Amino acid sequence: MESTSSLPWIIPVSSIIALGFAYFFFKKMMKNSEGTDRMKEIAQYVREGAMAYLKRQYKVVGIVFAILFIIFVILAIMGVQNPFVPIAFLTGGFFSGLSGFLGMKTATYASARTAHGASQSLNKGLQVAFRSGAVMGFVVVGFGLLDIALWYWSLNYIYDNNIFGLGLKVAHELGLTGSDAIWSLDYITNANWIHTKMVHITTTMLTFGMGASTQALFARVGGGIYTKAADVGADLVGKVEAGIPEDDPRNPATIADNVGDNVGDVAGMGADLYESYCGSILATAALGAAIAMHDGQFNDKFILAPMVVAAIGIIASIIGVFMVRTKDDATAKSLLNSLLVGTAGSSILILIAIVGMAYLGWFGWGIVGSVVSGLAAGIIIGQGTEYYTSDGYKPTRGIAEQALQGPATTIIDGMAVGMYSTWIPIVTIVAGIIASFGFAGGFTDFAHGVYGIGFAAVGMLSTLGITLATDAFGPIADNAGGNAEMAELPKEVRERTDALDMLGNTTAATGKGFAIGSAALTAMALMVAYLEEVRLWLAKVPELGADFIDKTGISSLANADIYNFVDYYNLNVFNPILLAGLFLGSMMSFVFVAMTMKAVGRAAGAMVEEVRRQFREIPGILTGTATPEYAKCVEISTIGAQREMLFPSLLAILVPIVVGLIFGVAGVIGLLMGGLVTGFSLAVMLNNAGGAWDNAKKYIEKGNFGGKGSDAHKAGVVGDTVGDPFKDTSGPSLNILIKLMTMVSVVMSGVTVVYSLM
Amino acid sequence: MESTSSLPWIIPVSSIIALGFAYFFFKKMMKNSEGTDRMKEIAQYVREGAMAYLKRQYKVVGIVFAILFIIFVILAIMGVQNPFVPIAFLTGGFFSGLSGFLGMKTATYASARTAHGASQSLNKGLQVAFRSGAVMGFVVVGFGLLDIALWYWSLNYIYDNNIFGLGLKVAHELGLTGSDAIWSLDYITNANWIHTKMVHITTTMLTFGMGASTQALFARVGGGIYTKAADVGADLVGKVEAGIPEDDPRNPATIADNVGDNVGDVAGMGADLYESYCGSILATAALGAAIAMHDGQFNDKFILAPMVVAAIGIIASIIGVFMVRTKDDATAKSLLNSLLVGTAGSSILILIAIVGMAYLGWFGWGIVGSVVSGLAAGIIIGQGTEYYTSDGYKPTRGIAEQALQGPATTIIDGMAVGMYSTWIPIVTIVAGIIASFGFAGGFTDFAHGVYGIGFAAVGMLSTLGITLATDAFGPIADNAGGNAEMAELPKEVRERTDALDMLGNTTAATGKGFAIGSAALTAMALMVAYLEEVRLWLAKVPELGADFIDKTGISSLANADIYNFVDYYNLNVFNPILLAGLFLGSMMSFVFVAMTMKAVGRAAGAMVEEVRRQFREIPGILTGTATPEYAKCVEISTIGAQREMLFPSLLAILVPIVVGLIFGVAGVIGLLMGGLVTGFSLAVMLNNAGGAWDNAKKYIEKGNFGGKGSDAHKAGVVGDTVGDPFKDTSGPSLNILIKLMTMVSVVMSGVTVVYSLM
Repeated sequence: MESTSSLPWIIPVSSIIALGFAYFFFKKMMKNSEGTDRMKEIAQYVREGAMAYLKRQYKVVGIVFAILFIIFVILAIMGVQNPFVPIAFLTGGFFSGLSGFLGMKTATYASARTAHGASQSLNKGLQVAFRSGAVMGFVVVGFGLLDIALWYWSLNYIYDNNIFGLGLKVAHELGLTGSDAIWSLDYITNANWIHTKMVHITTTMLTFGMGASTQALFARVGGGIYTKAADVGADLVGKVEAGIPEDDPRNPATIADNVGDNVGDVAGMGADLYESYCGSILATAALGAAIAMHDGQFNDKFILAPMVVAAIGIIASIIGVFMVRTKDDATAKSLLNSLLVGTAGSSILILIAIVGMAYLGWFGWGIVGSVVSGLAAGIIIGQGTEYYTSDGYKPTRGIAEQALQGPATTIIDGMAVGMYSTWIPIVTIVAGIIASFGFAGGFTDFAHGVYGIGFAAVGMLSTLGITLATDAFGPIADNAGGNAEMAELPKEVRERTDALDMLGNTTAATGKGFAIGSAALTAMALMVAYLEEVRLWLAKVPELGADFIDKTGISSLANADIYNFVDYYNLNVFNPILLAGLFLGSMMSFVFVAMTMKAVGRAAGAMVEEVRRQFREIPGILTGTATPEYAKCVEISTIGAQREMLFPSLLAILVPIVVGLIFGVAGVIGLLMGGLVTGFSLAVMLNNAGGAWDNAKKYIEKGNFGGKGSDAHKAGVVGDTVGDPFKDTSGPSLNILIKLMTMVSVVMSGVTVVYSLM
Repeated sequence: MESTSSLPWIIPVSSIIALGFAYFFFKKMMKNSEGTDRMKEIAQYVREGAMAYLKRQYKVVGIVFAILFIIFVILAIMGVQNPFVPIAFLTGGFFSGLSGFLGMKTATYASARTAHGASQSLNKGLQVAFRSGAVMGFVVVGFGLLDIALWYWSLNYIYDNNIFGLGLKVAHELGLTGSDAIWSLDYITNANWIHTKMVHITTTMLTFGMGASTQALFARVGGGIYTKAADVGADLVGKVEAGIPEDDPRNPATIADNVGDNVGDVAGMGADLYESYCGSILATAALGAAIAMHDGQFNDKFILAPMVVAAIGIIASIIGVFMVRTKDDATAKSLLNSLLVGTAGSSILILIAIVGMAYLGWFGWGIVGSVVSGLAAGIIIGQGTEYYTSDGYKPTRGIAEQALQGPATTIIDGMAVGMYSTWIPIVTIVAGIIASFGFAGGFTDFAHGVYGIGFAAVGMLSTLGITLATDAFGPIADNAGGNAEMAELPKEVRERTDALDMLGNTTAATGKGFAIGSAALTAMALMVAYLEEVRLWLAKVPELGADFIDKTGISSLANADIYNFVDYYNLNVFNPILLAGLFLGSMMSFVFVAMTMKAVGRAAGAMVEEVRRQFREIPGILTGTATPEYAKCVEISTIGAQREMLFPSLLAILVPIVVGLIFGVAGVIGLLMGGLVTGFSLAVMLNNAGGAWDNAKKYIEKGNFGGKGSDAHKAGVVGDTVGDPFKDTSGPSLNILIKLMTMVSVVMSGVTVVYSLM
């Protein structure tokens, strides 16, 4: 029987509450003053640049979405695509884009206000920046869960009322007989019918993640190229060649640089985590539906549980945000502590709620263990990132010391630190996977074990509302610093925004831990959910289904377990086809990174030329008597990013399709596993090497190893410049690549099953 | 029945012929003059430095071997290690080391003679360098095949004559009865007995690869650290800071630099390819024994065929060496062509011989297809490497162009080129694996398919005698150039040695293609052979064997096929334990690279200090009135390499053992696959990025983008310096890491099967 608990109402309710609070925080932030006219003017420049860029990006993305939509419609008509996919694809993309858009809009309004707040007190600055970050946090979780809830109840309604004849289709698939007239009385109470319906619904919903991850990839890659082209251009010519400080108004690329922080770090990150958030919930729900089906007696708690956990997480995050309070004379360290109180408080609330859910029978105690494993893994990865990238520890200081011997040794040492640093996240994620699997399934029950892995991801992301707030906080503080510098505010204001910026770097490290950790767990759960899609398509194509039943010797497709799929599709590592996929997945990670780095290089090259041209042709810039043409630089970054993001993004969509068509299911699984395993290491390496170089440079700037202007500092700047595309373009994009390739495979599973050559 | 063909005699005979020709080429080379007294003196310095280093390296390696030998003996007494392993381990290590030692000894004698030859004519220089390289080529294949032949016939003799009671042990294992008295008459003709004996023999022989790969790893890592510490030190202080040219006698690190070419590129490469050569033959033989057993009627051609192919390859290579002839007025291009005539001629001869073997029934026509796939894959990978690293093409020129904007963009672009370049080798190796599998097994017969993959590796390496000659040629020419420079020979001599050096860079690219391609194919074949080891240990531990038979439902262990192993050990990619292994394997690649790069950094740092000290404390060096203390630099590199090589090498040995003990067979397979897939991409990236940076710098030095001394050139030098440890330490070591981890797993399979926790 379906659950009669009223708890599921928390799902839509909490998502609306989240959106309400986002609006509330936005309004509150807007009440703060933007400061002087100069500050307003600068903020306006950045806002306009960011909006102009997003408009262009959405235009390109819109075209890609339109083309994919048409392809999905054609495939649906051909009968190898779920008919809801075209719409699900669009809504996923829409909400993901909307989350990024609103988050970014907020950020661009918040930067001058944060600078103004910081001119009053550190605490005031923190409050404005943090609450603005919270807008994005709650927009993401609010829209994410709302979209899921809408789809879930709509699809249930459609199937239960036989709209489009879908209810009867399921009935016929099961071989149930009866006339259309007695539809609602007859089938809707049949246990087999309910099971099958639920599998249909959850696997359909899964595909809506592809829209979100396509949008996210474009946002990350496009934003990443934009921000780094501007940054590299500003640094190489402004800082190194002309010798003017960061964010100096004389630097023509400085506005573009500040725009970049918004479009890359804010909008890109919002879209990225929107996708992880929805993906983890949906994959876990699909795995839950499969369990419910196997267990025979239907219980929709298996499907609703991850959504309920997410909903509780929203409430806990809101409470957490209000726990972040500081005194007016707070130091940077006490600021960090107050942020930690917020996130730790939310986590504890969620744990209590989950224990309560286990007590109420929503899931077994093993799942509690899985969620704890996920939460712990996220925290450990974050701390590991902090160790390898913060200037408080040996690795980053070592890089700074190597800078004494020039840029070459700085690069070698930074690469080595990045590569070394893979061990903590990998050992942690391995432990997290095994623990969450073991807790939930006791190593004997695969289906429950993987369900546990899904919950580890859901648990890790349940506090997203507040962790994203602490994460979006960073670029806002960074921009506030830029605003203060350009508006020539007193030195202590810049010092305060710098303190906030450094705090942001620390929380960003933790945030990155959650992002990469949840991506790995989500991808793992999605791959298993992929097999559920395959099962569905086997059921829809009778001769394939019959072949499967024949060769595996099972009684019906519904009874097929993981081992039957392994047998039938030869999903062992010795299958040369699967091995081919593993190699290709590994290759995809490297080639994708190469493409995004090349793209940054080309876009940055154009920016370097332009900044040099302005210094050369507009004589008064360096003396401060002439205004640089900021808009030109904004334009160059925009066009560069727009042109360069297309090819790598399309490759990420096309490769899984082509591999599926040639190598079939085993090839796809290999590709996804290879991409996950290599991509994870590579992403960690890129993120951490980049972060370490950045902080090594800052450590030198603090006066160590010769300080600013020394040869060591120049070497440090080279390291930082190399690290920029590593940590802000390629590394974070790889995160999405892993998920997008999986999502594309899920969505195209019908085509793979029916048309593959092997 | 065992084969009665007399063809197998070619195996020991050709290996002795190879050693004879090696001696002949060595004697002939020694007849050439070493030139002026100054040239002799310099060559003597380099020779002494190299020998001093090797002595120290062998001391450390000797201690490691002694400890491992004792551990193996203890394990053998405990019954979880094959009793022949301790000795096999030592002989493998001994011959591998001996090959490297003799190759290097020859190279150090050849450099001054090559320089002297080049002072007469380009062709004369080529002949001396190439024939000297051939010494190493034939030493490697000669000792490799001789060792295999000795073991094969000795073990057959031991089993057939029941020495140590081994023959009867096999008989008892099979449940055959009878008294010891009628031993030779009774059992030795029993088909089952012969099968089982052969499986015992081939799997025993397989383990001798561990000695070879342990030796190879130390040689590559130690030599790689040595050579790059010296190179980076010489470049950073000598070229960049003091502004003196490469190989200038005023540079204190220049002798160490030349010693490094010998200990790293010659001795290291020799040991590396010795291991690949033996590994591919032995793995294929073990797979052949398994097939023979399954097929029921025993035919030792399955086991001997890969050895016969290798033996034919030796003869073909010798003929090929004599085909390398040029006119006295040859240009660099015609030199390359004459080398190509040699290698292509050998390849064609081998193909004809293989067709003949198929005709005589040594193997099916599918195997011919597999060998061709392997040969073709090696050539394509070599050409791809050439495209991405030669200054004749866009990628390298693009890096040179980026150098105009400084070191940061040079690094970013070079990284991108390296990552991009992974696509050709990976697509090729994927195609090679699938083609060789398909040809030999038609996608339905796994055992024959994998046997085909083994033959692809054997085929690729069959021309090793001559390809290694063209490969070792490079460092010899490089040293000859150093000798010419230091001895202040006329400018045209240096130009000729430079032409030879560039030719060496081209052939090295092809050589690297063979090295990495064969490593991947060999590792793949070894992993399947690993399961044969597991089968053997299951047979030796009755309760484990019974459990296996019980759970898989087969009639006897001998009948277990790959799918039974997949079922029993859950070797599918969804098994979290195997997935954990995949992640850890990926991590191992990154961490190992980080360690070797850090090691180079530390050793190079010490060298930089020393060179700076000498310039500072010995006033006359730069004016040429005082001699630098060369020996001090040699000493520093030696001590640095010796200290730094230990930890990464031990890690490579320990990790597979620990993973096996914790995670069991599935974890080990995951680790090896993850290491193979990520390590392959990473090695290609490191090798090609390093090569491209090197050539981009040289391209600038030719006068492009500002030429020598320009800012672009300085940026190019930074790129080259970063690339040095990439391409000469970490990249090539990764090659061996992949194979060594597999070998360790093979050797420790008994411990894993009996003691693993999971």
